[in-house]
Amino acid sequence: MFDITVLGCSGGTLEVGTSAYLVKSSRVAYQEILERELTDEIVAVDCGSGLAKLCEIVYDELCGEGDSMATKSLSFYTKDQVSCLEKFTSRGIKRVGMQLDTQCESTPMQVAWKLNHMVKNYLLTHPHLDHCSGLVINSPSFGAHSGKRVHGLDSTCKALGENVFNNVIWPDLTASDKGSCLQLCSMEDHVPKAINSTYTVTPFKVKHGELTSSESYASTSFVISHRVLKRSILMFGDLEADDPDTPNEGLNWKIWQHVAPMIVDGSLRTVMIECSTPNVDANQPLYGHLTPATLFQELLRLRDMVRSLNGSETLEGLEVLITHIKHENAMIPDPREVILGELTELKTLHNLEVNFTILLPGQTYTVS
Amino acid sequence: MFDITVLGCSGGTLEVGTSAYLVKSSRVAYQEILERELTDEIVAVDCGSGLAKLCEIVYDELCGEGDSMATKSLSFYTKDQVSCLEKFTSRGIKRVGMQLDTQCESTPMQVAWKLNHMVKNYLLTHPHLDHCSGLVINSPSFGAHSGKRVHGLDSTCKALGENVFNNVIWPDLTASDKGSCLQLCSMEDHVPKAINSTYTVTPFKVKHGELTSSESYASTSFVISHRVLKRSILMFGDLEADDPDTPNEGLNWKIWQHVAPMIVDGSLRTVMIECSTPNVDANQPLYGHLTPATLFQELLRLRDMVRSLNGSETLEGLEVLITHIKHENAMIPDPREVILGELTELKTLHNLEVNFTILLPGQTYTVS
Repeated sequence: MFDITVLGCSGGTLEVGTSAYLVKSSRVAYQEILERELTDEIVAVDCGSGLAKLCEIVYDELCGEGDSMATKSLSFYTKDQVSCLEKFTSRGIKRVGMQLDTQCESTPMQVAWKLNHMVKNYLLTHPHLDHCSGLVINSPSFGAHSGKRVHGLDSTCKALGENVFNNVIWPDLTASDKGSCLQLCSMEDHVPKAINSTYTVTPFKVKHGELTSSESYASTSFVISHRVLKRSILMFGDLEADDPDTPNEGLNWKIWQHVAPMIVDGSLRTVMIECSTPNVDANQPLYGHLTPATLFQELLRLRDMVRSLNGSETLEGLEVLITHIKHENAMIPDPREVILGELTELKTLHNLEVNFTILLPGQTYTVS
Repeated sequence: MFDITVLGCSGGTLEVGTSAYLVKSSRVAYQEILERELTDEIVAVDCGSGLAKLCEIVYDELCGEGDSMATKSLSFYTKDQVSCLEKFTSRGIKRVGMQLDTQCESTPMQVAWKLNHMVKNYLLTHPHLDHCSGLVINSPSFGAHSGKRVHGLDSTCKALGENVFNNVIWPDLTASDKGSCLQLCSMEDHVPKAINSTYTVTPFKVKHGELTSSESYASTSFVISHRVLKRSILMFGDLEADDPDTPNEGLNWKIWQHVAPMIVDGSLRTVMIECSTPNVDANQPLYGHLTPATLFQELLRLRDMVRSLNGSETLEGLEVLITHIKHENAMIPDPREVILGELTELKTLHNLEVNFTILLPGQTYTVS
């Protein structure tokens, strides 16, 4: 069982609350991580949001406002009443708080600061600002020799080193001669890496739109495996669907091949994946993202693969967590509602028995 | 008279609410700008925060929560009770809301989106992420041929073009062949530029810390002049004090020389300037920022200069707006309180009759 805390899950164009997730196993509480400094129990995936959003969540918990981060972001789309949070959550998973000690004497800033200090390993899917700006702007607070490590494919690490921590856009806080505040650590595509004593992570390169006719933006998905619990989750960054004409030459295809046996043997029950915009006309550009329709192309392929491994097996009960919804147009209703409606329709149409949850900022979800 | 709306005024290390200000003359209301599309009446200075923070302010106004952005950020430092906002405001200036039509049918997102669309001119002090990440992440919402222009010194424009809008860290939305979402427009140091039909802006290069022994980071201050009202304000980005041994060779010295006559003739009554951290030991590095002590070095020089122009004239009534306070350590009290205390002590010590206001996020201030 994993707990996923959403610091942010937006794909822009709002600059606040963009993609950032904390992952830990449910067997240790955040309070225990804080008190016993269990830095190996927690891992961050992307960091568009960081310390400020963590501080807001802690403030909500300690000062009793509960769901205010999620409620506020839903309220931007209405003058009347706030949509209820439950409708975005599947029956399979629980929304729990961070379960911090509300009797503690510390201020929200102090608790958030310490919790952020416990995060030593960041998995970055790609170097677009909405996935890393929190990490960059927070970095002076890390302190020299913080032990913080940023793991990503070569292309991600190189992009950050050359374009951000380059003494132009940001001071080079990765420089070891200055007692680095954080280290950039390259991962090899498809190669499992033990990032600490608890987690092994396997990165898979995915496509995130065309750059030129021959080049595309690279992004990453991560299979995060808890070595003791022998459970894994699959978390995607931004991605586009495989070419529908040659799906089994695609990069996503390889990921489904990797995880299908894990779904069959029950060691992987949760997939976090983006669905940036509602369905669009076939002619409209997707800029390297998924819609409900193209997400279903991928999920149906996964179902076929699982079926081919085990005749009777389906995706029943698979938890699909939807992220990276974009605020693209203020004139339409909340895109979260539109996307959930379209996913539900497609689910009925294709008789696909997965559970969809639209992630909301500030929430902590317990998944299997 | 000018209205300054603070989208954010933090210098990090929190990733949310970093430096971003909207400036307009008080003669037109935001509601009028919205309804009559008076794009030439408004200008943005820095854009660490953007559309999301504007949306929060509009939500606070339309849905009646008033000061919640400022209150929340003050509350992070206490478990007990929220400090009152008034103590951070001088008697000389008013905190007013954006004075939007609360009876309108539009959602907060729609109003914020439209208001953001009215901002066509951005003045960027330097390319550090806490001063531009909002602009970058918001940029896909601008639309092709938005008419948005980003003005900055050559070094700022070049840094953004090469390192951010470079198809690695962000898609190149400045490219004219794709119908640019925004244009990067270089300004010449010390040369006034009419950015639209209302405002003329003169940029002054300042120093923002050492890069090597011979090179330093560049930042900018802007004198923003309303041509009809014949009034100006001076707004600084990050900066360090001039060398105390050779002050009249310094870059700040030249700015004080430029504005001293405007203070004497009454056409400039407001200076927005950073004071990132409380006073520190002489040996501690300042990383190219000001403390209350070094800010006073500069203000006392300005007073001397004003006095030399007009024997009896002082800085009495000059409004000094303090920005860019850093959240550097969760263990100390709110640095805003510490800095205000130190400034007040120095003011008494030096008998300097300026008014200090610590800017707070989400607030709109009316200054002369």
